[in-house]
Amino acid sequence: MKKLFFPLIILSLAFMPQKKTKVIFFGDSITQAGANAGGYIPRIDSMCKKEGLGDRFEFVGAGISGNKVYDLYLRMDEDVLAKSPDVVIIYIGVNDVWHKATSGTGTDADKFEKFYNAILKKLKDRNIKVILCTPAAIGEKVDFSNQQDGDMNAYSNIIRGIAQKNNLPLVDLRKSFLDYNLKNNTENKDRGILTTDRVHLNAKGNQLVADEMWNAIKK
Amino acid sequence: MKKLFFPLIILSLAFMPQKKTKVIFFGDSITQAGANAGGYIPRIDSMCKKEGLGDRFEFVGAGISGNKVYDLYLRMDEDVLAKSPDVVIIYIGVNDVWHKATSGTGTDADKFEKFYNAILKKLKDRNIKVILCTPAAIGEKVDFSNQQDGDMNAYSNIIRGIAQKNNLPLVDLRKSFLDYNLKNNTENKDRGILTTDRVHLNAKGNQLVADEMWNAIKK
Amino acid sequence: MKKLFFPLIILSLAFMPQKKTKVIFFGDSITQAGANAGGYIPRIDSMCKKEGLGDRFEFVGAGISGNKVYDLYLRMDEDVLAKSPDVVIIYIGVNDVWHKATSGTGTDADKFEKFYNAILKKLKDRNIKVILCTPAAIGEKVDFSNQQDGDMNAYSNIIRGIAQKNNLPLVDLRKSFLDYNLKNNTENKDRGILTTDRVHLNAKGNQLVADEMWNAIKK
Amino acid sequence: MKKLFFPLIILSLAFMPQKKTKVIFFGDSITQAGANAGGYIPRIDSMCKKEGLGDRFEFVGAGISGNKVYDLYLRMDEDVLAKSPDVVIIYIGVNDVWHKATSGTGTDADKFEKFYNAILKKLKDRNIKVILCTPAAIGEKVDFSNQQDGDMNAYSNIIRGIAQKNNLPLVDLRKSFLDYNLKNNTENKDRGILTTDRVHLNAKGNQLVADEMWNAIKK
Repeated sequence: MKKLFFPLIILSLAFMPQKKTKVIFFGDSITQAGANAGGYIPRIDSMCKKEGLGDRFEFVGAGISGNKVYDLYLRMDEDVLAKSPDVVIIYIGVNDVWHKATSGTGTDADKFEKFYNAILKKLKDRNIKVILCTPAAIGEKVDFSNQQDGDMNAYSNIIRGIAQKNNLPLVDLRKSFLDYNLKNNTENKDRGILTTDRVHLNAKGNQLVADEMWNAIKK
Repeated sequence: MKKLFFPLIILSLAFMPQKKTKVIFFGDSITQAGANAGGYIPRIDSMCKKEGLGDRFEFVGAGISGNKVYDLYLRMDEDVLAKSPDVVIIYIGVNDVWHKATSGTGTDADKFEKFYNAILKKLKDRNIKVILCTPAAIGEKVDFSNQQDGDMNAYSNIIRGIAQKNNLPLVDLRKSFLDYNLKNNTENKDRGILTTDRVHLNAKGNQLVADEMWNAIKK
Repeated sequence: MKKLFFPLIILSLAFMPQKKTKVIFFGDSITQAGANAGGYIPRIDSMCKKEGLGDRFEFVGAGISGNKVYDLYLRMDEDVLAKSPDVVIIYIGVNDVWHKATSGTGTDADKFEKFYNAILKKLKDRNIKVILCTPAAIGEKVDFSNQQDGDMNAYSNIIRGIAQKNNLPLVDLRKSFLDYNLKNNTENKDRGILTTDRVHLNAKGNQLVADEMWNAIKK
Repeated sequence: MKKLFFPLIILSLAFMPQKKTKVIFFGDSITQAGANAGGYIPRIDSMCKKEGLGDRFEFVGAGISGNKVYDLYLRMDEDVLAKSPDVVIIYIGVNDVWHKATSGTGTDADKFEKFYNAILKKLKDRNIKVILCTPAAIGEKVDFSNQQDGDMNAYSNIIRGIAQKNNLPLVDLRKSFLDYNLKNNTENKDRGILTTDRVHLNAKGNQLVADEMWNAIKK
């Protein structure tokens, strides 16, 4: 009896619609734009499908312009947890640094870390996998003379430290962007290599982010 | 029978240890200092006892230096909800305004309101009573020439609006401090009337806050 | 002989081209725009001519966008002294306050005063008459809740103090704008009463400035 | 005849009281402290005397705490030109960058360059030799994660450009400090290598500055 019964179950499972791995991209305006046509999220979706994994993954953008780390924390119940993701990719930090200079409303380094850890705790409590990203760039100059370079490195170090301490996968966009620019930005331009405006991604920037994230997701 | 029975119940209730109304003061360094000897919290406790209500109220300080509205939100589960208060007095806003100028890490007005409302929602969900306060002062000059006067008024307006919209009691410290200074600060000094350093309370400042809060608590 | 000679001199003086009083408007983008059609400088010129004083005054704009007090000091040799004016109207201060919040590059109050006095000294050394102005507005709200109201009042106080100490005529635009708004801005709007964008003047703002300045110039 | 005459001239020159080369150090609090015992100015004086050149040079400190480039411009007539120096060493830029974050009163990059050039013009007009310095450090971390690293590099680049364009000697302290730290600051500390507090010089910092400046002066 059992021998007969078993193959039937396997068969029925094979025909059952497989539950897709839901990946939520959680971030600021870069992620918001990343969900548009040509953005890194549809690019990841394309790569995924090309590799025949289209029935295995589902990609959801959750980026809102102007967001800092505490904004993510505030809206994560509604925008992330309520959607029951399997994986969350956190890409935050640019505004936390940038808004110090443009409106006096950036985020202190110690509080950046505190809120980042609070987000991770909530995700961990629900067994949601997390991939961290460092913030890529505010300015693409390669001689470290972009106004926020020091702070961008400091906040990236915080994220790297959190990743290491918690043994979490890290997409080190800050490093990738710098490496790419060191090779390709021979005129020391502040934009136009991977960004349109020093911050937001052009086609090449979106592809670079897509490549790195897709690699991390597949793992 | 009934006539006999009723007084007994009343009698037994009178001897039962009455559950005290727990009041938590939730705020920044002003509240943190307010819990020290001479601070407004022990002053409220004294007034409460003088009025023979010492067995009816319990006062708990929950102020942390440097806190802004989002810091309250982050730590409210642990520092407020876990203590099951009956009343929470929220006194926040000075750092949200001040840190714009001193470290570029203040809070945008729209986000100030968002986090404030998020705190209120969590308290309302647990039927905890709330008393709101406007931030008193960054500088006591009476000709509206303290650097942050405009923003302090703007953020106080936000809190007043929230109180009105939600029909919540408001201790309008900003107004009380200004009124007091208009009468008593005849030399247009920036400190020394109700504050020691433009922000933190001297004895008179602590008493004024204690008077206003105690009035609001008794209601 | 003398009787004959005297009238001839008077006659010849009457036909001599009279040296006009040259008035230079020295300031920032508000003054720069004030030189355009509809701006307060052509409006002053029109009023002057209507009053039959067109041959007595010459009006020259010297406003440059983004200027702070030290920018005026830096360019005053070339843009003011080299033109040998009789009167200079200094209208500065908005950017000294505003840029603190928008780019972290405002001017400290003590240095604002220092540079202001240094400008006055150079003008006094050449016997050039000076008229001072307070900066009108960054936001027109009448409940003192425009972000920079405190600082705008503080820097206006500095200018008022300099005017008083040196016995110089003052066009107190800050006060005039507030008085006008208290009467006319019944909805507590932040723009649209005397400014287009909280800072730069609309037609009514230009006329108000023109009226006040022309009164001061005629004296 | 000639053989006799020549030595006499040399002899008479040797006995004439030689006019010393007056070197003024023009800067901010780093230069102000540099004039104190143990500071780089007395260190330069000592080195000068050890090399037997004590009768050839005179060193004068002209540093004032909190100074930015426009403060130097404002006070250069009184503090520099009136003292008729032969050489002026300009060491400015830290506060122009730093005060953006600490009080919102830093200096825009374009205006930094403008005032710097205006200072140079005044010195050139009087045939005073100039030595330029880049600002050394706000933080000594060697992974480019000091908050102001980007801006410090940007403003140093401005000074390097001015030196190159005008063919002026440059003491590139920014580079020297970084090189020294890359070798000696193996723990990536933010202070304590060449500075006491991330900005002001300890004994080693003063010696390094003294060495570099003295080399430039002798040339």
